[in-house]
Amino acid sequence: MTAQAQTSALTKHAPKTRTAITPTRAENYAEWYQQVIKGADMAELSGVRGCMVIKPWGYGIWELIQSELDHRFKETGHDNAYFPLFIPLSYLQKEADHVEGFAKECAVVTHHRLKTIDGKLVPDGALEEPLIVRPTSETVIGEAFANWVQSYRDLPLLINQWANVVRWEMRPRIFLRTVEFLWQEGHTVHESMDDAMLETKKMHGVYQDFAVNVAALPVVPGEKIAPERFPGAMNTFTIEAMMQDGRALQAGTSHYLGQNFARAANIKFQNRAGDVVLAHTTSWGLSTRMIGAIIMAHADDDGLKLPPKLAPQQVVVVPILRDDADHQAVLAYAESVVAQLKQQQFGGKPVRARVDGRDMASADKRWQWIKKGVPLIVEIGPRDVANDQVCVQRRDNISGQKRFVKRDEFVGSVAAELAEIQAALLAAATQFREARTRTDIQNYDQFKKFFEDAGENGYVGNLGFVRGGWCGCEDSLTKLDALAVTIRCIPDAQRAGPFTCLLTGKPADQEVIFAKAY
Amino acid sequence: MTAQAQTSALTKHAPKTRTAITPTRAENYAEWYQQVIKGADMAELSGVRGCMVIKPWGYGIWELIQSELDHRFKETGHDNAYFPLFIPLSYLQKEADHVEGFAKECAVVTHHRLKTIDGKLVPDGALEEPLIVRPTSETVIGEAFANWVQSYRDLPLLINQWANVVRWEMRPRIFLRTVEFLWQEGHTVHESMDDAMLETKKMHGVYQDFAVNVAALPVVPGEKIAPERFPGAMNTFTIEAMMQDGRALQAGTSHYLGQNFARAANIKFQNRAGDVVLAHTTSWGLSTRMIGAIIMAHADDDGLKLPPKLAPQQVVVVPILRDDADHQAVLAYAESVVAQLKQQQFGGKPVRARVDGRDMASADKRWQWIKKGVPLIVEIGPRDVANDQVCVQRRDNISGQKRFVKRDEFVGSVAAELAEIQAALLAAATQFREARTRTDIQNYDQFKKFFEDAGENGYVGNLGFVRGGWCGCEDSLTKLDALAVTIRCIPDAQRAGPFTCLLTGKPADQEVIFAKAY
Repeated sequence: MTAQAQTSALTKHAPKTRTAITPTRAENYAEWYQQVIKGADMAELSGVRGCMVIKPWGYGIWELIQSELDHRFKETGHDNAYFPLFIPLSYLQKEADHVEGFAKECAVVTHHRLKTIDGKLVPDGALEEPLIVRPTSETVIGEAFANWVQSYRDLPLLINQWANVVRWEMRPRIFLRTVEFLWQEGHTVHESMDDAMLETKKMHGVYQDFAVNVAALPVVPGEKIAPERFPGAMNTFTIEAMMQDGRALQAGTSHYLGQNFARAANIKFQNRAGDVVLAHTTSWGLSTRMIGAIIMAHADDDGLKLPPKLAPQQVVVVPILRDDADHQAVLAYAESVVAQLKQQQFGGKPVRARVDGRDMASADKRWQWIKKGVPLIVEIGPRDVANDQVCVQRRDNISGQKRFVKRDEFVGSVAAELAEIQAALLAAATQFREARTRTDIQNYDQFKKFFEDAGENGYVGNLGFVRGGWCGCEDSLTKLDALAVTIRCIPDAQRAGPFTCLLTGKPADQEVIFAKAY
Repeated sequence: MTAQAQTSALTKHAPKTRTAITPTRAENYAEWYQQVIKGADMAELSGVRGCMVIKPWGYGIWELIQSELDHRFKETGHDNAYFPLFIPLSYLQKEADHVEGFAKECAVVTHHRLKTIDGKLVPDGALEEPLIVRPTSETVIGEAFANWVQSYRDLPLLINQWANVVRWEMRPRIFLRTVEFLWQEGHTVHESMDDAMLETKKMHGVYQDFAVNVAALPVVPGEKIAPERFPGAMNTFTIEAMMQDGRALQAGTSHYLGQNFARAANIKFQNRAGDVVLAHTTSWGLSTRMIGAIIMAHADDDGLKLPPKLAPQQVVVVPILRDDADHQAVLAYAESVVAQLKQQQFGGKPVRARVDGRDMASADKRWQWIKKGVPLIVEIGPRDVANDQVCVQRRDNISGQKRFVKRDEFVGSVAAELAEIQAALLAAATQFREARTRTDIQNYDQFKKFFEDAGENGYVGNLGFVRGGWCGCEDSLTKLDALAVTIRCIPDAQRAGPFTCLLTGKPADQEVIFAKAY
């Protein structure tokens, strides 16, 4: 069989008219999202209300997110620590805005044991003070910090926590909105507003760097308008990603909390002048929601596409085993290619590669890895062994021709090719965002028409961001409610004004991003 | 000043008659333990009932424990995943022994929101089915596994979870017994009893390897007797460490669960013969309790002593800054030494070293690091810079002379010296365990006298393990209850018999470890 004939034999399993995921994005975007997750075997909703099970492939992505972020947090001087899961109601009650923001949706622990009545387990041992399961930890961490901070010498205090949190979501969706989710929450204490604001913006920058350079998400960094701030915060900064249905997804937020939480928890210190004063605090968080953003920004109708830096496997080798006599030779060759790949470095770490030696049809294996979004899929048959070559397919270009490459050439250029794929995903998402960002809308009529015309499925309907002026008047926001549109952020990078408010027609001294959002 | 005079000047802060920790082990062992934790700034009890805050130094140790174990789990074929925090009562109820073992002490969630009545927050939104916060996850993971496992081709299923768990302990003690703690729990599914038992023993071996070669704990590996098994298990294997007061501490357990949990969760699969049969499962866990074991096995009256493999910092350089003019030169030299140290490898990782450049008396800094258990503390003053040398003190031998060593010699031998310290800690703990293990006790009178004579403080009272025969009769265990002694395990390595039961005087075909325990 010639190389060309072999290619043709292999690609016959992948007619372009069929997709690996049903329905497609165009057919039903919301259901497509669920099916991508199922097809990649990443996670599932559990039998426990609104809680998900993160399966190994999904958790592997989370471990890489953790590793990339944790490294950045430590490089910027933060230490990890761990604080209680439970928050007494009295802690929560100390910050009025905060309790308003979180009390409506939380798991409340009221008993500390079970007893059996008529063969049925029932709660027993009522607690004097009920506890809530943390929806976020400002209040419980503040109680600890109040003891840790005595003098300006104790500052800045730079702490991060990796933890699970619970918010009683009524309409759960895997990764995007679940009752329990995993995240990191940074909590820091500073001498002055300037120091705390510097920290807030530094972490805002860390999130942006991570999103763009690791997750290949061309996020728009900016500040939230007052009604969209974290409950109790003075300023909230966000990175907003665009999904393929044109909706925004808030992917990481950083809050300057002023002295509000310091006042609530009594975090005071003796300053350089000898006076005892309230500290300034910050908090910042990024969660497993990021995995939802990665899916909806990069996946296609054949399943997940992972940016190489977040792929649990970057190269998977599928041996093509037709004849029993060839098995040993093909498997040995495949293993030796993988061993060579693991010697290569990408992003400062050894390339993650494996042979899929399972007892299963090779075409089925190949489609499993396509659906899982592995950046490079390599097939090796007896002919390849004989020719000292491999057959390579790039996941970011699934319809593209498979390439037969000499083994050493492939190994030698694998890091460069992974970097190319990483860049290609970012470029594609950037191009998509640019194409779906309207900067030409002039007034509210056009604005309303744009959002109304998009229809239910934004992927088909060309939904997107509208970038334009906003006068700052909060009354004007009621116009947005009717359209289910929100102001996502005031972008850090402002174009030159003057602007006209798209809601009121008044002069505006800032531009914002309007969008429908997750 | 001569090198000797300098040494004398430096050690004047550490007269041997004073200890850094008050009280000493001999004065009050239980309080000493708390003060070591406080002195090392590792953790504290929070204001939330029975929950601890793990501070950066303690959490840094946990991160290293995680990294060492996680590596071993992955090497043995396990994947990480994440399962819900909450367990519906109906799941728990399915395994009778299990519910009996855990229902008595758990946090019960009964409501899903709060409302304000007369300015006070109260639970609202009662759940139809209360949820408990996982005390361990066999039941909730079993529900997921039942869907994942269909055929023998899906087996073995090898999963691990890093998570927080909650058990409502009535008398909490930091690291040893807290309402919330962190752990890993492995959960696996197999085709046969043989496969499952092989897995159970493999992970028992992984725990032993970790304890001995990483935590420097000369644990006794063995099997639990029936009444001491995990609720619902067929066999429980344990590693038992000896603390310096002669008490045992169970440091990691591995359970063969038979088909009990498979039956409860309905984990069935089509076997190779085509029949649908129940699977065999295992579980195994190790928690932040391990940190308590490390403290109580290695610390002394000057504070913590960390095995180098688990030290967040392995070398800390304290600059001796007396004269403002010298500051720059001393700090630059110190930083260059640390940069060289970080180029060295110990245990397959770069040496963890830092300069303590804080604005504080150097003697105070040095004592802080001694209390934190840093293996190597290095002092550098202007004279050392001039002589291209460093002044080294080993934490495992705090009363020993400080050594002045040429800088290159120190850097070149740092990995070897850390390995020596690692070995020295294990050797000291092994010697202690040997000295405190009685194999000469012949009958119950001697046995009773041994445990009664030890008194309240086992450190002073020479409490320890008794190794001897046990006939297997569970009635005989009531004799132990009165002495607050338990059978810790049937050691894997049995000496040659025959044995005589120390409780009944009857012939015994096995020997066990008797001890008071944490």
